[in-house]
Order: sequence, then structure tokens, then C-alpha cells
Amino acid sequence: MNTRTELESLGEIGLINRINQEFGAPTRPETVRGIGDDAAVIDTGGPDYWLISTDMLLEGVHFDLAYTPLKHLGFKAVAVNVSDIAAMNGTPLQITVSVALSSRFSVEAVEELYAGIKAACESYRIDLIGGDTTSSRSGLVISVSVTGRVPKDRIAYRNTAQPNDVVCVTGDFGAAYCGLQLLEREKQVFLADPTMQPEISEDKSYVLERQLRPSARTDIVYELQDLGVVPTAMIDVSDGLASELLHICTQSKTGAVIFDENIPIDDVTYLVATELNLSPLTAALNGGEDYELLFTIRPQEFEKLKNHARITPIGYLTDKPDSVLLGTKAGQYTPLKAQGWKHF
Amino acid sequence: MNTRTELESLGEIGLINRINQEFGAPTRPETVRGIGDDAAVIDTGGPDYWLISTDMLLEGVHFDLAYTPLKHLGFKAVAVNVSDIAAMNGTPLQITVSVALSSRFSVEAVEELYAGIKAACESYRIDLIGGDTTSSRSGLVISVSVTGRVPKDRIAYRNTAQPNDVVCVTGDFGAAYCGLQLLEREKQVFLADPTMQPEISEDKSYVLERQLRPSARTDIVYELQDLGVVPTAMIDVSDGLASELLHICTQSKTGAVIFDENIPIDDVTYLVATELNLSPLTAALNGGEDYELLFTIRPQEFEKLKNHARITPIGYLTDKPDSVLLGTKAGQYTPLKAQGWKHF
Repeated sequence: MNTRTELESLGEIGLINRINQEFGAPTRPETVRGIGDDAAVIDTGGPDYWLISTDMLLEGVHFDLAYTPLKHLGFKAVAVNVSDIAAMNGTPLQITVSVALSSRFSVEAVEELYAGIKAACESYRIDLIGGDTTSSRSGLVISVSVTGRVPKDRIAYRNTAQPNDVVCVTGDFGAAYCGLQLLEREKQVFLADPTMQPEISEDKSYVLERQLRPSARTDIVYELQDLGVVPTAMIDVSDGLASELLHICTQSKTGAVIFDENIPIDDVTYLVATELNLSPLTAALNGGEDYELLFTIRPQEFEKLKNHARITPIGYLTDKPDSVLLGTKAGQYTPLKAQGWKHF
Repeated sequence: MNTRTELESLGEIGLINRINQEFGAPTRPETVRGIGDDAAVIDTGGPDYWLISTDMLLEGVHFDLAYTPLKHLGFKAVAVNVSDIAAMNGTPLQITVSVALSSRFSVEAVEELYAGIKAACESYRIDLIGGDTTSSRSGLVISVSVTGRVPKDRIAYRNTAQPNDVVCVTGDFGAAYCGLQLLEREKQVFLADPTMQPEISEDKSYVLERQLRPSARTDIVYELQDLGVVPTAMIDVSDGLASELLHICTQSKTGAVIFDENIPIDDVTYLVATELNLSPLTAALNGGEDYELLFTIRPQEFEKLKNHARITPIGYLTDKPDSVLLGTKAGQYTPLKAQGWKHF
């Protein structure tokens, strides 16, 4: 090889696009959908589609053990995968977990990690069915794959939304990002003066929990079923609300308008963001790691959801691809930009 | 936590046993078999069982980039997973691949890795359906999950062998281990004097290929089907022939006798082992990474396989659990011991 192209110059999305192009479309009749959605979709010949998704978390990149309890980390590693199954409108079934550990971890520490994994398995009613433990020369690595199932007529892809659909979200946004910033600040205080003990007051625990031990919205999948609603498109919010809305719009070839005053932000998030000199709205739009669901429904279905306490309509889709706008009360519209995580 | 138990004191198997005990039996009706075989087994309501398995490879633990071409590494990462599906008598279908990379890798290097993954996908006729690329603070990490399917009446577990079954193996043993030792020796020569270029003669390429670019024996799965034979038990040889035979015996509650003169060892393996002052038989029994299949069949089925060029009978099972013996021509019997990889 004569040339050297830096990964940085291509970026994660660029790299993924290049790999996908190289591989081309799936060839097996069992593969209904490969790369490009929250989970791959498999037709096993049974009544439901089967789903599979995978995520890898690395110490120093995705988590910092200086302030991440191992039990929470185990829970989170499972929850972020389960969230991908929920984003297909599916029910999670099983996980495999591979863990690489260095000798600085004690058996007790590993048991803490697995206690968190077990708590997540119980919470989401899934089985641990396989995996791998191995040594690592450096940090902790956790790789989880998750399976799920969804009735064929209830699956929700990213690329099937239509103009005029109502854009809805579950829960609230920006808390996980504010939690991370708070933890990073306390870590810097501690590093500067190790006699200082980090002190985070009880009233901020909400944002910490959202960062350290997020939940997957499997509850919403059941409730949508009860309400008789199938989203026209759905995605989970891991990289930031703006970034995920752009994914739906790009893949569905629609535009969108969402309104800043509609975006649900918790009071604690406001409090912490203000204390940290962050814009609560920016944290909500670009912070990431909320693991809420962003979905679209036909306008005539909206009646069924409008009184749901944990679902908020934030805007609608348009027939103008490339126009994804944030509107203010004052009637100003600015284009939304994805500012998700840069991994290289 | 007041006590600290070192991982070393428990070992990988001890740790896995502890985790499994903690988790207990699977609870989902879809989970036919969880941890404890080459792959987990899922009932999707369709005609076949669905299989899933996962493996993670870390730089500095499972491979050394000083002598591992990235293209071969990509192929191997897939092949070792496909091998787990073959070990259930199944057909591989799909993989997900997560890769963690540091910035020292160029885009061209990553493309080499994925070229190997693609070559494996084409070789085994499987789809790449998902994954993850992320940055790593240290070495390269590759985590692969594989799916497969197998007709319900053709599945081969580890725990269903019976006394008097014939123990068979595919291919030959010890080559991958000898290849590794050869590569390690040349690396030491190079480290001691960087002006020395590693020199491995052409006639040893077989053992290098077995180490760097192993194949999964999916061919045997098709041939067993053509011959109308369902193994009573099957496992793939990743940790060493002795260790895997012990797994079948322990899980099936049988003993075994195998004969040293029956264990297939290639001429090149003999040559290299002798040059390296290794016992070819020890390399074959304990070397690992052969990715051949070890299986058992009912004695009355043996007629169907006895002329198969790539299948060798090496012994039989007995009704004496805890007695797994290696017999010599001279009529001496010694207990087989597992000397698989120690990961901590």
C-alpha cells in the first residue's frame, strides 16, 4: 500500500459508508434488512421477524471507571442494546456478552459487573445465552449482542416515514449529557486536588442516573401495541435527538419541522445545564445517550396518543427533503445539524 | 467490598462457572439452550432451530500484528465464529462485526481487515448484517457474532454422546500451534536483530496458513447430511483436542479411549514440530486453534463414514466417566488432561 489515509479524515460515518458499499446488498434469503437500521431483520420462517443488534463499549472511550460503578455499567451495556430492539418496535429476548478484563480487576469487581448485567436481564425479561470472557492488555471491553422478535405487521424501520406524519418522542432529553458533564467536572476537581471528595447533591441525582444507568423504553413498545398504533418510523436516541431525526428524514426522504418549546427537558436538566453554563436546548438536541425513542405516526393516529404522559409530539414531517428545521415561538426557523459523537 | 480475589486464582473456566451459577437457567420459552455449547439454540417458531454464537479477539492476547496480515485476521475472526455454527451441525447465515481501532490504523489498513471479512462472508455464503466501528485507546478489538440454522432433528449438542460411540475428527491437528511457534520464533529473531528479515521457507506454509487463516469445516456439515449421519455429539476444536474431548465426556457423562497412532498429524506439522523441539503429539492434543470438528457417531453408523478421506476415527466412548484415556500401540494408557489456553 502506497497511500495512507487517516481515519480522522473519513470519520465514523464515512468509514461505515465505505464498508457498506464494499459489501453490497445481503444475499441470503433469510436477511430481510442488513446494515442501516437499529437492528438487522431476519425471516426465520416463523410468524415473527427476528432482530439482532450489537454494541461494543470500551473503557476510556465510552465510559470512565473513575466515576462509573461497575454494576451500573453492566446494566447500561445491556440497556443500550435492548434500546435498539425497542427502536424496531420489538421485544428483546436474549443477549450474548463478551467481556475483556485486565488482571487489575478482581473477581469481586467482575461479579459487580455481572450483577448489573443480571439486573438488566431481569428488568427486560431476557436470557443471557452466551458470550466470552478473556483477558485484555489494557482496558475493559464489553461487547453485547441482543436478539428480539416483532410481528411482521408491527415492525418499525427508519425509512418508512411520510410527509405530514407527527414526530413524537418519549421521556425527556439532555439529562444524560448534563450528567456526564457533571461527573467530568467533579473528576477534574478530584484530579486537581485528591483530598477533595466529589460532592454531587441529591437533587441532581436524576441526571446522574440517566447517564450511568439509562433505561430502554420497552414499556412504550407494549403501550403502542395496546393503543393499536404502529409507528411509521422509529429510532432510538443514542447520538442526540437532532442526529436521529436527520437519520429518519434522510432515510425516509422527507423534511421535518420541530419546535424548540415542545422538546421535553426535565427541571433537573435545566438546573444542572444552567449551573454548567450549557444551553439546555443544545444538550437536549445534541447531547446523546438519552436512549429515548423518536418515532413518527400518521396524523390520524395522533388522537390515540395525545394524552399519553410519556409521549410528546414535537413537530411534523414535510415533503422537503434536506430541510430539517427547528422552529421557535417567535417564528424563526434554523436548520438542524447533527453533532453526534465523533469517534475518531 | 472488603475482600479481593485475583482473577488468576479462579481462572477463565472458574469465572464462567461462577457467572453461570449466578444467572441460573434461561427463562424465555424461545431459549432452547443457553450457555454451555458451541452456540445458543433458539426456537423461533419456524421449522429450524436458530443458532447464535459470539467471539471477541484482542490484539496482544489473541493475535500479534507483528506477523498477522490484517486481511487474514479479518478472515479468521469470521471463520472461528462460523466454526461454532458448524459444531452444532448448522449452516451459518449472518454475522455482525464490531471493530475498535486506534488512530494508528489508516483507512487502507481498515479496508484490508474488511477485505478479509468479506472474503470469509463469500467463502461461507453469509451476510454482514450489522456492527459497530469505534475508537480504541489501545489495541485493535474485533467482536463477531454469528447466526445459523439447523433442522431440529439434525442438531448436535455436546452432552448427548453415549458409551460405545465412535470418536471421529476432521482434518489434522497441531499445525496451527506449530505455525504460531514458528512465527513467534521469527519475531524474536527480528526483535533481537532488526536487520534480520524473518525467513520461513515455502515448504512450511501449511502450518502458517493454519494459524493465520484457518477454515471452518462447514463442508463436513453438508457431507454428514448427504451421508445421512447425525453426530450424537459435536464440538469444534479451538482449545485443543484433549480439552474438547473432555468437554464432550464431561457433559455427556461418558469416558473415552483414543489412540495416539490414530490422531491425524500432517507431515509438515511433524517437520516443524521436530525443528522446534516440540512433540508433534502434544501439539496435536493441546495446541488448539485447529478449528476442526470432533464428533461422535453410533457404532452402526461408522460404515457410512469409514472411507471418508477427511474424517478419521480416533477412539470410542466408554461408560466410565472421569476416565478419558490416551492409548499407545504398546498398550499403555494415560489419562488425558486439558491444557487449553489460560486467559488470566
